[in-house]
Amino acid sequence: MNRRLIARVVGLILGIEAFCMAPSFLIALVTQGPDVRAFGASVALCAAASLFLSHVRQDSRRLQTRDGFVAVALCWIVLSLFGALPYALCGFSYIDGFFETVSGFTTTGATIVPAPSALPRGLQFWRALTQWMGGMGVLVMVLALLPSLGEGSVNLMKAESPGPISSKLRPKTSETAKSLYFIYIALTLAEAVFLRVVGMPLFDSLTTAFTTISTGGFSVRDASIAYYGSEAINWIIVFFMFLSAVNFGALFQMQRGEWKDALKSEELRAYTGITVAAVALIAAELVLRVGQGVYESVSQAAFQVVTLMTTTGYATVDFDLWPHFSKAVLLLVMLVGGCAGSTAGGVKVSRVVILAKGLRRELRRILHSREVRPLTLEGARVGEDTVSSVSVFFFAYILILVLCAAAVSLEGVDLATSLSAALTTISNVGPGFALIGPTRNFAFFSGATKAVLSVTMLFGRLEIMPLLVLMFPTVWKK
Amino acid sequence: MNRRLIARVVGLILGIEAFCMAPSFLIALVTQGPDVRAFGASVALCAAASLFLSHVRQDSRRLQTRDGFVAVALCWIVLSLFGALPYALCGFSYIDGFFETVSGFTTTGATIVPAPSALPRGLQFWRALTQWMGGMGVLVMVLALLPSLGEGSVNLMKAESPGPISSKLRPKTSETAKSLYFIYIALTLAEAVFLRVVGMPLFDSLTTAFTTISTGGFSVRDASIAYYGSEAINWIIVFFMFLSAVNFGALFQMQRGEWKDALKSEELRAYTGITVAAVALIAAELVLRVGQGVYESVSQAAFQVVTLMTTTGYATVDFDLWPHFSKAVLLLVMLVGGCAGSTAGGVKVSRVVILAKGLRRELRRILHSREVRPLTLEGARVGEDTVSSVSVFFFAYILILVLCAAAVSLEGVDLATSLSAALTTISNVGPGFALIGPTRNFAFFSGATKAVLSVTMLFGRLEIMPLLVLMFPTVWKK
Repeated sequence: MNRRLIARVVGLILGIEAFCMAPSFLIALVTQGPDVRAFGASVALCAAASLFLSHVRQDSRRLQTRDGFVAVALCWIVLSLFGALPYALCGFSYIDGFFETVSGFTTTGATIVPAPSALPRGLQFWRALTQWMGGMGVLVMVLALLPSLGEGSVNLMKAESPGPISSKLRPKTSETAKSLYFIYIALTLAEAVFLRVVGMPLFDSLTTAFTTISTGGFSVRDASIAYYGSEAINWIIVFFMFLSAVNFGALFQMQRGEWKDALKSEELRAYTGITVAAVALIAAELVLRVGQGVYESVSQAAFQVVTLMTTTGYATVDFDLWPHFSKAVLLLVMLVGGCAGSTAGGVKVSRVVILAKGLRRELRRILHSREVRPLTLEGARVGEDTVSSVSVFFFAYILILVLCAAAVSLEGVDLATSLSAALTTISNVGPGFALIGPTRNFAFFSGATKAVLSVTMLFGRLEIMPLLVLMFPTVWKK
Repeated sequence: MNRRLIARVVGLILGIEAFCMAPSFLIALVTQGPDVRAFGASVALCAAASLFLSHVRQDSRRLQTRDGFVAVALCWIVLSLFGALPYALCGFSYIDGFFETVSGFTTTGATIVPAPSALPRGLQFWRALTQWMGGMGVLVMVLALLPSLGEGSVNLMKAESPGPISSKLRPKTSETAKSLYFIYIALTLAEAVFLRVVGMPLFDSLTTAFTTISTGGFSVRDASIAYYGSEAINWIIVFFMFLSAVNFGALFQMQRGEWKDALKSEELRAYTGITVAAVALIAAELVLRVGQGVYESVSQAAFQVVTLMTTTGYATVDFDLWPHFSKAVLLLVMLVGGCAGSTAGGVKVSRVVILAKGLRRELRRILHSREVRPLTLEGARVGEDTVSSVSVFFFAYILILVLCAAAVSLEGVDLATSLSAALTTISNVGPGFALIGPTRNFAFFSGATKAVLSVTMLFGRLEIMPLLVLMFPTVWKK
């Protein structure tokens, strides 16, 4: 393992974290908030740690696959440990701060803050910014800023970007990273402008754009998006949530005017199909069983389905009060999640498509004994090792999900709470059902459970393998 | 597709069903029960249908893989349609009878009968016998009785026997089938004798042995095994349930005195390990949180874990009242199920072992880029196509599980009920939680839900593929 280079990467990341905390420090200064000292100290600590690690001498500039996975896992853990400092210095317990920070970076949006509107402005900004940083990935940001990180830096991107096949938009890793961030920033600014135009306050517009495009789900309002009570705001957010969970490769094609190619994407079609089907099923139940009006039902169903499937997790209505079938549909889309190569969590649509195609191939194998055709996705052949990785990933996902649910049930909470807590954290959604429904929060859990849920969020965001690799003893040998 | 041969196989199966209904007819005659006419008519109908199909002329005696799958799926559906007749003719609705029969043949043990002790004796016997018939498989029975069914009859066994790798105890299919039934009958008789010796009434001993060795779980008593209130009976049943969910290949080795080989089985060790761990976790919670005595806790935990993991589903205590963590552990073992090549349901321990090894291999692949070692199980190499089949099976299992749960939730029942109903039927266990807990039954569900659950039970018992093959349009072409 290339320890020295990994240490340097961690140092770089801490430097970026110090840099990203600076705006919150400024906001705290300007608003003369109680969080001035917290951010001052946090920025100083991050910067000091970064400087310390920057003195590690490099001997080799080659990052192997393994090194990429280890570096990404370590970076995310260190980022979260330091990111929790502002919360801890503002009066939260350290584990609460850690949970909130992990929930931020992993773009989960599960919160231990009962009333985010009462937080100091600087902390509100930091809370939203952690989601924006985590959405596209902090290491992808490093690659965009520092093209000369070393050979094999593609392994960093591979380990941090979600999906079975890493998207390579342009020949060089650093160019791909730049293109991704270009789209990411453009979407964020566009949404902020739209929200501002329809009357959302400036601070809210910016922080909401941060947490939408990253499919995060934190809000500066206690009632989340329901606070604004505006259909225009709801639909703008639905539009941008939906877009943010689309494969950024397809968005890149759209940006270059290659609309035909982009719209041919099998994953995009499956993603749209599942979304529309889920909205239709839930709207039908709301109309027929609850007796709501058609527009109201479609509007509410669209918002909740999109916010949960894209793993954002805003709230406009208390869907925990909906009939059980609608809730089951919501649980299902939370499991599936958004497209690979987007900022969304979940198993990812492309994996579900590959698994479904694997099932069809298995049936074909039974029907026509000898014929075995290779799997294809987006017109390209999917290698057997990718099919096997996807299958193993799905198994590991379900395994972590049920083990996490079992661990949460030690709190003595019912199945709806423990299962939805596990699902909402591993899929990086945010709210769950019952005791952690959209109008509640995670504050009541014990520290141990918060730690388990934090690890589950990291498992979800990093797609399991990087964290599991850390647990392999051989990885720590020289 | 070899339609004529498949029709003949279905005919044979119906003949066996008529034959197996005969004892119930006799019991009804002897006890002068109200079910005499029901069984008389049912035997006659089965025999008539069997005779009719036996006149189909065969043109080819070759069964391909596909034909094996189709034959098995059709046989199980037809068996259940006819097996429901005695219930329907005794005053139950046809869908209730169908549900109960499918629950019998698939060895699930979920029931719509609130008080089985009030059923006529003949029907009680038929109810228990359906489980015994389904446990080892009706087509395996055909193969044992009629060795000359045709070429490729191994495909029937492949489609009906559970597990990723079909067990071949002896060179010829018919000899394997005979060996399996020999062990099956020996275990059944042994348990019946043991139960009789410790004081269980003769009729109860025999029917309980039928439903234990098949890991079925029907009981002739309203309170299930709790009725007898005997620790000796409980432990005898635990012993035989545990044995019945062991791979019959390992039992075959034990029978031939090859204990060393049998006990080396990786699947057997994993199965034992999971059982012991689950008992320990639950017993610990019962002692520490509920405050029960140690022996009582271990005894209750052992019975419930073994009855649910082997997918039998008897009840001695109302585990729905246990703390949530214990219930989560029970749900987990219900998902895993017993060993492949046994009468148990669930995903099967060997599949979980293969998936876990696949995960470990994936991690190795990341750590040591080039090295890819093949998977092994029980010392033999597991082919990539088997690994892929296992992965696809797991995905399909979870898919059917969640779709079934969503369908059940249309009844307006909570998550604990809908999810455990889906899990208990696909894993062929029997009881669930909340509204279908061990002291309740499935009678209150609508006919549509009962139909969905029946199909789910068949999916579980036939391990998904045979039923899915039926849904492929090309299979119906000549």
